[in-house]
Amino acid sequence: MCIGLISFAGIFVKFVYNLATHPMENPSRMATGTFNPPETQPSRPAHLRFANCRTLLQLLRVHGPCSKADLVRSSGLSAPTVSSAIAQIEALGLVETLGEGESSGGRPPELIQFKASHGYVAAADIGGTRLRMMLADLNGTPVAHWSTQFAADQKDPASVCSVLDEGLRAMCQQTNIPTSKVLHLTAGAPGITDVRAGIVRFAPNLTGWTEVPLRSMLRKQTGIETIVENDTNLAAVGEYRQGAAEGVEDFVFVAMGTGVGAGIFLRGSLHHGARWSAGEIGYLGVPGAPREPMEMHKTGQLERMIGGAGIELQWLERLERAGLRNEPELAELRAPQIFDLAQEGDLLALEVLQYTAVILADAIATLALVFNPELIVLGGGVGSHDRLCRETDRLLRSADFAPPRIRTSFLGTQAQLHGAISLSLTAVESKLLC
Amino acid sequence: MCIGLISFAGIFVKFVYNLATHPMENPSRMATGTFNPPETQPSRPAHLRFANCRTLLQLLRVHGPCSKADLVRSSGLSAPTVSSAIAQIEALGLVETLGEGESSGGRPPELIQFKASHGYVAAADIGGTRLRMMLADLNGTPVAHWSTQFAADQKDPASVCSVLDEGLRAMCQQTNIPTSKVLHLTAGAPGITDVRAGIVRFAPNLTGWTEVPLRSMLRKQTGIETIVENDTNLAAVGEYRQGAAEGVEDFVFVAMGTGVGAGIFLRGSLHHGARWSAGEIGYLGVPGAPREPMEMHKTGQLERMIGGAGIELQWLERLERAGLRNEPELAELRAPQIFDLAQEGDLLALEVLQYTAVILADAIATLALVFNPELIVLGGGVGSHDRLCRETDRLLRSADFAPPRIRTSFLGTQAQLHGAISLSLTAVESKLLC
Repeated sequence: MCIGLISFAGIFVKFVYNLATHPMENPSRMATGTFNPPETQPSRPAHLRFANCRTLLQLLRVHGPCSKADLVRSSGLSAPTVSSAIAQIEALGLVETLGEGESSGGRPPELIQFKASHGYVAAADIGGTRLRMMLADLNGTPVAHWSTQFAADQKDPASVCSVLDEGLRAMCQQTNIPTSKVLHLTAGAPGITDVRAGIVRFAPNLTGWTEVPLRSMLRKQTGIETIVENDTNLAAVGEYRQGAAEGVEDFVFVAMGTGVGAGIFLRGSLHHGARWSAGEIGYLGVPGAPREPMEMHKTGQLERMIGGAGIELQWLERLERAGLRNEPELAELRAPQIFDLAQEGDLLALEVLQYTAVILADAIATLALVFNPELIVLGGGVGSHDRLCRETDRLLRSADFAPPRIRTSFLGTQAQLHGAISLSLTAVESKLLC
Repeated sequence: MCIGLISFAGIFVKFVYNLATHPMENPSRMATGTFNPPETQPSRPAHLRFANCRTLLQLLRVHGPCSKADLVRSSGLSAPTVSSAIAQIEALGLVETLGEGESSGGRPPELIQFKASHGYVAAADIGGTRLRMMLADLNGTPVAHWSTQFAADQKDPASVCSVLDEGLRAMCQQTNIPTSKVLHLTAGAPGITDVRAGIVRFAPNLTGWTEVPLRSMLRKQTGIETIVENDTNLAAVGEYRQGAAEGVEDFVFVAMGTGVGAGIFLRGSLHHGARWSAGEIGYLGVPGAPREPMEMHKTGQLERMIGGAGIELQWLERLERAGLRNEPELAELRAPQIFDLAQEGDLLALEVLQYTAVILADAIATLALVFNPELIVLGGGVGSHDRLCRETDRLLRSADFAPPRIRTSFLGTQAQLHGAISLSLTAVESKLLC
């Protein structure tokens, strides 16, 4: 009995660690034996207690306030096991009692809930011109926002880290949360990011961002455990968790703003590629345009043609031809405003929108040919314009192939922050019970 | 004890079913209890015995002939458990004894080996002009090959199925294997294939292949369990299992022959896409060429320019200009022969190879931008030419971005068949013990 059981136990613990879904019963009664699983592991009873606590915590987080009897029912654990695990979790400050619930006859049961204010996680979206930040509790509910425009001399890595630290402190002050309660930070950077090494390889829209060890810089600056990720990838995670791609396992998030890039989501998680550069579609060639050699340190062809600046150039050329180049209220319009004008029926603006949609539709067709995703989510300051989405969709549907569904981002400029919070919550989860 | 154990057991059984790696001890001694896992399952002891048999069978297949003592050591199971499981496997005809091994002092131990001739699996590669077939034993070792050129009136679905059946019977006759021992068939088709439904959506190089229920047709024709898959995807599986991409989890197999297509391999398995059309790169636009609307029922731009016919057209144009158009031994050369000529230093042929490599390098750059794979494997009658691979690699390396590694197929025209055998072996594996 014993030997087999231990082989069970080792596997089971790994199983629970991975999925945290299957509860088990009273592990303290488990016998020990001589079989050694391949990896060294700490003593099993502690691990099993940990797994029980984790299961109950997860139930509390998903289902909200409930009684111990509810937990017994939904976990399959025995009442004494639930009681002892809840006591342990309570001692760590992770749950709180809420008073009494509805009685089904006898004494009304005490309700327990996950204490989301036990800790907080922070998100930072480092853009080419501004820094956006968010603080959220352990349920992912935002409790504070902060943002600032970078001054011209604030775009180097060290300055960005110190502005970010300032933002973190400001949010903690606003909310009266001690910085020690901020358990994790995820920062998004506008460039190719080696998530494993914590290094931003290259971010062309900032100053001096080549091979920046952003993760260790931020850890040092803030004292907080940190993940760094590409900003478009974070936006894709955000849209997957609670946005336009909720529940869609295979989709591509196409971000159009100053730059053009994509976050590739396959089988329910980000696809980074062998060198962390998957989704760098700004460098794609544009059908019908002259062939160009690829130069990673220059703006790519697609981005040059339908990034914000490319769209505004098209607009200025058309104003010029129409003799309207000197009207400042027209000449100074930015890409989203030009699309607003198109929406109102302005013919010149409609031409620019049409120009953009044709090129965007070709790029999406390329993505569809390679990946055949279920869905494309258009995001970013330019890409999330509803009229652009509808026109692109119309063009794709008129072609002779089955195109993916297209929809605009639900989370807009907040997508990156929500994605970052989601990654931080996942990172923190396994440490809550330690 | 009991209740927890059963919760263990349910999970453990699922675990072994998925991975078939972790052995366990003497399940017949397990107690039963009242905990019901969410899914209904047959009685556990039978399941656990099954899991033990499966573990031992896997060890025998991987390690080759070994003694019961070897199995006890490498499985972690007890000697009586191994003995009873081996007796069970032997009764099913899945192992055979080989005589005596080397003695370590006492009586020399009897060696047992997996009986690969217990059954066979068949592979069929349906091409635009010919059918290739292979029969392999349960170790995947080929025992027979068969191939035929389709007559002009043999390219419709029903005729292809009957030619395939003929090939199957011919291979069985050659080898004296009763068709009843052929346990599974995987057939590859040159078109978009819905693997789940068993339907070939569209195969332009055959006749009348639109929405063909190939799986059910083949099952009916041959009486054998069948999988249908896209041929390029099968080639990718073949290269992954025992070819140029062995052990590479993220790679793209680019097939260039009459057609141009790709098999996308992601995290160690095929990526099919939402509508089974991932990798249809023949329709990609070619940088610098005029923009074309996408028409799935015509030849795509990339395929038209660097598929076999496109390359041969370039060659004829150059012959024309050089006044050599009427030399039949030159004018009738096919793409691989033109590349052979380039290899020997012929300048016109080198120009054609260069033309092809530039366009191929751009297509690979597109794949690298969106997918960033570790490796590109070039295959197919045209794509596997070594000189083309070297020239494409040189062009990619001269560009200003980190390109993927490129290598030619190791398995050549046999890649599809090896991939098919591999899928059939996986499909058959779980049924061997039933």
